[in-house]
Amino acid sequence: MLEGNRVRAVHGTLMHAPVAGDVEILEDALIEIGSDGDICDVTVPGAAGFAEKLSTARSSGSFVSLKPGQFLLPGFVDLHIHAPQWPQLGKALHLPLNEWLAKHTFPLEARYADVQFARTVYRSLVETLLANGTTTAVYFGTIHAGANRVLADLCLAFGQRAFVGKVAMDDRDQCPDDYRDPSPQAAIEDTDALISYIRDLPDNGSGLVKPIVTPRFIPSCSDPLLEGLGALAQSMECHIQTHCSESDWEHNYVLDRLGRTDTRALQDFGLLGRRTILAHSNFITDDDSDRIVAAGTGVAHCPLSNFYFANSVFPLRAMLDKGVHLGLGTDIAAGPSASMFDSCRHAIAASRALEDGVDSSQPAETRGRPKSRIDFRHAFWLATAGGGVALDIPVGKFAKNYQFDAMVIDLNADASNVIWWQDADSLGDVLQKIVYGATRANISQVWVGGRSVAEKPCG
Amino acid sequence: MLEGNRVRAVHGTLMHAPVAGDVEILEDALIEIGSDGDICDVTVPGAAGFAEKLSTARSSGSFVSLKPGQFLLPGFVDLHIHAPQWPQLGKALHLPLNEWLAKHTFPLEARYADVQFARTVYRSLVETLLANGTTTAVYFGTIHAGANRVLADLCLAFGQRAFVGKVAMDDRDQCPDDYRDPSPQAAIEDTDALISYIRDLPDNGSGLVKPIVTPRFIPSCSDPLLEGLGALAQSMECHIQTHCSESDWEHNYVLDRLGRTDTRALQDFGLLGRRTILAHSNFITDDDSDRIVAAGTGVAHCPLSNFYFANSVFPLRAMLDKGVHLGLGTDIAAGPSASMFDSCRHAIAASRALEDGVDSSQPAETRGRPKSRIDFRHAFWLATAGGGVALDIPVGKFAKNYQFDAMVIDLNADASNVIWWQDADSLGDVLQKIVYGATRANISQVWVGGRSVAEKPCG
Repeated sequence: MLEGNRVRAVHGTLMHAPVAGDVEILEDALIEIGSDGDICDVTVPGAAGFAEKLSTARSSGSFVSLKPGQFLLPGFVDLHIHAPQWPQLGKALHLPLNEWLAKHTFPLEARYADVQFARTVYRSLVETLLANGTTTAVYFGTIHAGANRVLADLCLAFGQRAFVGKVAMDDRDQCPDDYRDPSPQAAIEDTDALISYIRDLPDNGSGLVKPIVTPRFIPSCSDPLLEGLGALAQSMECHIQTHCSESDWEHNYVLDRLGRTDTRALQDFGLLGRRTILAHSNFITDDDSDRIVAAGTGVAHCPLSNFYFANSVFPLRAMLDKGVHLGLGTDIAAGPSASMFDSCRHAIAASRALEDGVDSSQPAETRGRPKSRIDFRHAFWLATAGGGVALDIPVGKFAKNYQFDAMVIDLNADASNVIWWQDADSLGDVLQKIVYGATRANISQVWVGGRSVAEKPCG
Repeated sequence: MLEGNRVRAVHGTLMHAPVAGDVEILEDALIEIGSDGDICDVTVPGAAGFAEKLSTARSSGSFVSLKPGQFLLPGFVDLHIHAPQWPQLGKALHLPLNEWLAKHTFPLEARYADVQFARTVYRSLVETLLANGTTTAVYFGTIHAGANRVLADLCLAFGQRAFVGKVAMDDRDQCPDDYRDPSPQAAIEDTDALISYIRDLPDNGSGLVKPIVTPRFIPSCSDPLLEGLGALAQSMECHIQTHCSESDWEHNYVLDRLGRTDTRALQDFGLLGRRTILAHSNFITDDDSDRIVAAGTGVAHCPLSNFYFANSVFPLRAMLDKGVHLGLGTDIAAGPSASMFDSCRHAIAASRALEDGVDSSQPAETRGRPKSRIDFRHAFWLATAGGGVALDIPVGKFAKNYQFDAMVIDLNADASNVIWWQDADSLGDVLQKIVYGATRANISQVWVGGRSVAEKPCG
């Protein structure tokens, strides 16, 4: 990892959500950052030693002071991204799922046998996500060893905190002939090899890029593959990601094949643990969510793709109240936006749709599912600190010993739609306006572990 | 209206949706624009006279040729905007409707008694909407004569096609003491005066800015006021806008008070005609929609605000199939975005939520309302040509005798999240990616009636 462009102190107004459902704003605070990219201290004006610390920081060579209209927010944690689907973002979503997969997604993913193609696409993906403030990305790769290594290399080179997984999929009925692991054993060996490759990468001593065991989902994996991956993840102490109970079809397929829910089955295969991220989980039962809470497993809520492929809205509020570790995912490219701001907004909208229901021909009393709403505070937490908790890594808020993964939101940027009326808007209002209205155009600077990874060319 | 910055011909690739549900892309076409801002001709390469026309256009002084990665789209028609709520965009949406109205919206609207305040806010609003590609805007103003005139003046000065309405609201139970018309007669006279003011504005000979009769909604208006406004609109041959059957509360309030639905009541008051725009209409009955179709009335679907305040999703697809004139509205500030791209995206998402339903604990068979989905093609049509049809004005597509209201989408803009993979994406794919991913940052130029009204400073 390049050592240039490191910041050691930032002075400005910080906005974060350290606790689910609440936000905290610290005006004109000073953040000091250590050489490992961790936050050494957060000091507010009036606190003992503030003036001296600020003066010392100013005289150091790597100090940034925010301008009026700029605010420091934690970087986003995107818990669910299909890296190879990047060229397909915002495309083909008018098609039904089977056509989307068979005619577009699987043929596209098969192209990553070509390492040069992978390099071109993945470079664009990592750069774009960093420019959108995504400082931690959890990636599904493809079945291809070369392309997966390229993705890990690029995350490290560009300085994005990332989890990179070799997609494992060997089921002959569910996977196309030209895009399938030849056997369970081959898929397990390839997964093992990628784990070693990533952990041994030069300059990855801090573990900025981590491997993640990635059975695509139960329908595309044989039982021996799932069992083998569970054992591998356990022995290698590795994170795990997969899809869980996403849609009517998928949930029922697993019930038919295994006589158990996805969650039960994943647990039996050794795939449900504290380091597991389950995408979606819309159709989990009460028993399933009990198991998920007990295991400390994380769930990636993907509100945009839910509208297209999940036949329902994830019961987010109920799962938050139950204590499930939760964060948000863009689900690129089943979700059509690269921006976690869009995930926040759709998470709020979806929660309102679930609460009130959607069909006006039904009586109000039975139309929706009461007490399902979240607001911008929960959405912001999910996209930052919540994602960090789900992954069990110290990111997503401005606190001592957390990594300095952050972005500067600039309300004076060209093309900003966020307008601050200083006589009428509190800083809390400004944060709500940012969550609802900011775009990539408002992001003027991004750091991961104190390293500058994206800076706007103009503005 | 200023006459500078007029374009007389544009050469480039055009993308529009002339017919509901379908898109048309004309590569490297030439659009010729008359001195009245109307389109004289659209010519494609290979057509008779194309080369000569292009050569003539090039040598004229007001010719624009799009660069690679740029596409010409019709400007947006936003059918529902509360102009005074602009400072509140993206704010206070975590509150219930009654608090949102009583603590934020009504006190904010009352401030427009101050004309200087109105000038500051409305200037920001009109400039921002133009920069977002909204070339036709349908505005609710406030009860204040001065502020409403300022809004009309600014639309004309900045060159935005607009409908500006004096909000009429006199009901003593439903409106606050400090923000209410003193009597039906006063409200009718003020409406009449604004109609004359706008029609008589110097430089408004082409009718760029039009008046619109605006009873807020039935609950805030007395019967005599509604009756008087219906008669006034008819005698002045004026457009009309109001809210209709938006939520459970509102729909039931009107049933209780008048023993009829909103639609029936509006018809009885003379307020339901070809020049009427009804916002929302989520709870209309079959009989209501029959009347709306027969009257040729337009409906403004506002998907973003539906999630917050309508207790349901508007049955868009069914109403399209029935022949209702339909377009989209941002519903600023009950909808938290100024961008009609966001309205398009949420219209699609909402339609999918209605089709599949939202509550995964319900059986799939009864969870949703089948055949409710729309896709990006309908959304794009609604936001452009559909809005033009609803208003009965010639805008929203590139056709002879239509006004040249258009925007340039630049995929090479800084902060663009729309990525064109030229070996894999057809132009149809590019349009879908634009509808799903473009933001204000992608809009490099906007014209209304051939006049340049927004141009990006950098990029």
